[in-house]
Amino acid sequence: MAFSRSSSISFFILALFALFINPTISSRVSSFIQLPVSTVESRPSVASYCEGWRLAVETNNAGSWTVVPSKCVSSLETYYNRGQFDKDYNVVANYALSYAKTIQLAGDGKDAWVFDVDETLLSNLEYYAANGYGSVPYNSKKFNDWVLQGTAPGFDASLKLFKGLKKLGFTIILLTGRDEVQRSITTQNLLDAGYSGWEYLLLRDHKDQGKAAAQYKSERRLEMIKKGYKIHGNTGDQWSDLQGFAVADRSFKVPNPMYFIA
Amino acid sequence: MAFSRSSSISFFILALFALFINPTISSRVSSFIQLPVSTVESRPSVASYCEGWRLAVETNNAGSWTVVPSKCVSSLETYYNRGQFDKDYNVVANYALSYAKTIQLAGDGKDAWVFDVDETLLSNLEYYAANGYGSVPYNSKKFNDWVLQGTAPGFDASLKLFKGLKKLGFTIILLTGRDEVQRSITTQNLLDAGYSGWEYLLLRDHKDQGKAAAQYKSERRLEMIKKGYKIHGNTGDQWSDLQGFAVADRSFKVPNPMYFIA
Repeated sequence: MAFSRSSSISFFILALFALFINPTISSRVSSFIQLPVSTVESRPSVASYCEGWRLAVETNNAGSWTVVPSKCVSSLETYYNRGQFDKDYNVVANYALSYAKTIQLAGDGKDAWVFDVDETLLSNLEYYAANGYGSVPYNSKKFNDWVLQGTAPGFDASLKLFKGLKKLGFTIILLTGRDEVQRSITTQNLLDAGYSGWEYLLLRDHKDQGKAAAQYKSERRLEMIKKGYKIHGNTGDQWSDLQGFAVADRSFKVPNPMYFIA
Repeated sequence: MAFSRSSSISFFILALFALFINPTISSRVSSFIQLPVSTVESRPSVASYCEGWRLAVETNNAGSWTVVPSKCVSSLETYYNRGQFDKDYNVVANYALSYAKTIQLAGDGKDAWVFDVDETLLSNLEYYAANGYGSVPYNSKKFNDWVLQGTAPGFDASLKLFKGLKKLGFTIILLTGRDEVQRSITTQNLLDAGYSGWEYLLLRDHKDQGKAAAQYKSERRLEMIKKGYKIHGNTGDQWSDLQGFAVADRSFKVPNPMYFIA
């Protein structure tokens, strides 16, 4: 194909010139073409806000919140679909496993690691993706129907961590906010997702109804400690999985910007 | 200026074709030109890892760490220079101020808010940018020389939060890991940066030497509580500013991916 090289170069120069002198064009194209820093005033402000919002949620700065801001839904979709979520979870899993390897186990079967279930071992992303990525109010009936399907997959990172900890000799305790009536489907779902060999699966029974998650989970951890377990590590997607009393020696917060549980 | 429009269009089509069929070129240019999602397999893996690493640091999942991974220096540079750091801090400041507005103040002057100083009220970014963004080991002599210059600026977000809290009637307590011998330069630097009207500036004195930050800061908060202060909020860039005992009702972790203090 014949084309004039010099004309093309001229066209490029003209196009670049237009971008540099016209801030309107410049900002309009900046979401597609990343210009050098000095020519881009800021990242698109909504995406940038949503990144800040997500960090505030993950660091527990946001406090109690009910729904994902509607303007951040597409940021969350991108976060999950482009693989950054998996990357973020993987970094946490690696830190947890590195820490676990430094522990001198007593070898009496009492060296324990606690895992939450939903969004820690099992991913409900399919449900949330179909329900606004957490931007619509929680619907317990609808979510319960999804749980009863028992088709939630595991995370690559949590499977690696879970299996790695078992291999190191840790006793695994699963501690979930799910109800005792969901024991059977939860067990089957976990097995189908690739988990096995846990020592306990602790669910809410009648006396736990209505308790805040941090209270219920702290009480259950305390019971385990009273049984002689040493809780070296705890992994959860909610700060209420990790805080309160009878906390683990180290806690690992895995990412979940879709919902908050007090 | 004369140029052949059709030749230029041909050149563009050729160039785009080359990008789409050649993944090597495609990945090499993707850091400059953002291609549509389907043509970019994933974000460049280093940037993606560094984003995960930064989140792990901010959520305290990384535990104790000494230097920023060298491969993440350019990600941090981008984080600061493109404004995402400021955006992230601003989101935290807004959450803190929203929370502060919900508090019913006793009005006896004992409603307190604690601030750390370095990387919370004063930015040492100029120093760190000139010293590898935290990727080189901490040099106490060199950092001390920088502190003694007294030229660290404030953050827009921290100035807004500080002034907002004062206006609401909170008593401001500054609690820093800096040494008592740096009181004068620290006071002057804070005033120059736009802060004024704090009640206490607490620095490490002889009895605090060698104490872990969380221990020292918890002890000082406890002293304030014993003096009758109610610590409604605490703002710091390190988890050791916020955790331990005598903790605030709510703690706000502001971003700092450049260094870790135990």
